[in-house]
Amino acid sequence: MNIDGNPYRSVWVDPADDWSVRIIDQTRLPWAFELLRLTSVREVAQAIRSMQVRGAPLIGAVAAFGLALAARTDAATPALEEAAATLLATRPTAVNLRWALDRMMHRLRQARTANRIDVAYREARAIADEDVAQNAAIGRHGLALIQDMARRAGPRRINILTHCNAGWLATVDWGTALAPIYMAHDAGIAVHVWVDETRPRNQGALLTAYELGKHGVPHTVIVDNAGGHLMQHGQVDMCIVGADRVTREGDAANKIGTYLKALAAHDNGVPFWVAVPSSTIDWNVADGVSDIPIEERAATEVTTVTGRAMDGTVDTVRVAPSDSAAANPAFDVTPARLLTGLITERGCGAASEAGLAALFPDLAA
Amino acid sequence: MNIDGNPYRSVWVDPADDWSVRIIDQTRLPWAFELLRLTSVREVAQAIRSMQVRGAPLIGAVAAFGLALAARTDAATPALEEAAATLLATRPTAVNLRWALDRMMHRLRQARTANRIDVAYREARAIADEDVAQNAAIGRHGLALIQDMARRAGPRRINILTHCNAGWLATVDWGTALAPIYMAHDAGIAVHVWVDETRPRNQGALLTAYELGKHGVPHTVIVDNAGGHLMQHGQVDMCIVGADRVTREGDAANKIGTYLKALAAHDNGVPFWVAVPSSTIDWNVADGVSDIPIEERAATEVTTVTGRAMDGTVDTVRVAPSDSAAANPAFDVTPARLLTGLITERGCGAASEAGLAALFPDLAA
Repeated sequence: MNIDGNPYRSVWVDPADDWSVRIIDQTRLPWAFELLRLTSVREVAQAIRSMQVRGAPLIGAVAAFGLALAARTDAATPALEEAAATLLATRPTAVNLRWALDRMMHRLRQARTANRIDVAYREARAIADEDVAQNAAIGRHGLALIQDMARRAGPRRINILTHCNAGWLATVDWGTALAPIYMAHDAGIAVHVWVDETRPRNQGALLTAYELGKHGVPHTVIVDNAGGHLMQHGQVDMCIVGADRVTREGDAANKIGTYLKALAAHDNGVPFWVAVPSSTIDWNVADGVSDIPIEERAATEVTTVTGRAMDGTVDTVRVAPSDSAAANPAFDVTPARLLTGLITERGCGAASEAGLAALFPDLAA
Repeated sequence: MNIDGNPYRSVWVDPADDWSVRIIDQTRLPWAFELLRLTSVREVAQAIRSMQVRGAPLIGAVAAFGLALAARTDAATPALEEAAATLLATRPTAVNLRWALDRMMHRLRQARTANRIDVAYREARAIADEDVAQNAAIGRHGLALIQDMARRAGPRRINILTHCNAGWLATVDWGTALAPIYMAHDAGIAVHVWVDETRPRNQGALLTAYELGKHGVPHTVIVDNAGGHLMQHGQVDMCIVGADRVTREGDAANKIGTYLKALAAHDNGVPFWVAVPSSTIDWNVADGVSDIPIEERAATEVTTVTGRAMDGTVDTVRVAPSDSAAANPAFDVTPARLLTGLITERGCGAASEAGLAALFPDLAA
């Protein structure tokens, strides 16, 4: 996507040296646009853990490049397996990380050790390119849903609610949940986005609002508490969110609070779509509520907030008494029964075992 | 309640002069404990508008004292009516404000002008004292619910989730939703409270956590997004919240986000109780979603957060891009169908026209 007129992906190989990996430091947005250079698997793991890169598809792509960096140091199988294990341990909930590492290791094991650096970069670039193509396809399939809604709504604007950031910053490009919105806006449909703040890390207010603003898409930031009220009063036409893992029965793990919005959408007859590439589907898990591991992050993410002070500096303030404990589950699972459906690179389908098997007969087997 | 060993109410007449009205500046808590002196109806209106005092029962009591201050300046009926109108316009959603002003004006109109200052102070003190007594009664009725739950749960702790602040700071003393919790804790029941942060003004993390901490009640602050996940995993035994207005059919307007938690409680079979004195019931309104006015507050409450910086100063930081709009509906309405029931000073009852009429046959007529 364009940032001030320049096209960017969220991860790429530096053309200056053709090996180091460049990312945008997402913990600094929107206050500063800073690029980082990653040169080792250790740096990649740290960037994922600290959420300098985040979003299930992007985590997978960056981890793939992490294995390429690891191969530069030691391309022997035990060293690569250790690197893969290090990367896999960074974040437990998103399944794209495991998917990308499995794909890389499968390919690397087939290659002669001497060729593995080239093979690793080629495969990582392929994962990144495929992610872009899949997200563009998700965008086209989601666009059809929005076009259909706009036809029925007449001349008024279409209000879409999204939670967290499932935009181009959460993927290699385009985004999952935001891809249909960008395409609808580009097609001249009057879309307006309700942007959930998404505490505790505020990825909605910080990253989604930033993305939409840069693209010129009308949007309004709301606290995470407000979506239900808006739906009760007919101010939300549809919800589109991403996911970090979808089970083969269609349960969707996504940023904490997604479940609450899906309940409100269900209670008010508002369509609720989850946009994911097939790499986000975990065919090994059926029941998401009981079987998807939920990452518990630091309490300080809850008890503090970082923002821009009036003097322009970025500051962190405490927002709870110093002797109060805090808990911070980072994801929740929305049961498939609350979803209108999934938007995938192969099209839209029901969030169910049958729906997923119909879209992906090759993967569901 | 006790603050560092000293008993406080949240509003009182200064014993030093026997006329000025003292409040705790709740916009400074928990970082500073500062008392304010209110000497005019203008100052009272400003304190309510700026949320130096907030919480439906407390707003009613403070407004009553506001009319007493008005009577000191001009006790003629037109002047009192103008003062009442000024106070009524400060906050639209809570009905206790109107209830207290109506009660005061009814009493004042019956009195001779020369006696109205005395009558006003007497009536305002009566409103405050009755609020304390009613909340203590709410506490006892809610305690019975918790005791019953504790008996069935055995030795483990009872986890109660609350949203916003419906503690003693939201009333004259005791609180509504927190009164049963204080009494359960004092009775030796192992209660633990999940404290919703309650964006945008963070009254949960700032005021409820402060209150519970001062009283020694174990509690954990969570973001507003987290409650559904906790309920899915059996970590919430019951929810108790307050309300700003309950319709005669049992719909409850409360701080924005309450509806989402009630949906999650309903989806997971978790009892969801609303604790209110009868002064919070609006017998003139049936359908809360369509007929309760919802206050829209400043966008800056969403786009900024105030907290304590690392150097100890209280600072405000911006948490959304400067060119992003924000919307800030301050309340939502939870339909009666999602409530387990109401806890009132007369006991617990169904959130329905029949349930309310059975508890309050004298008022429902």
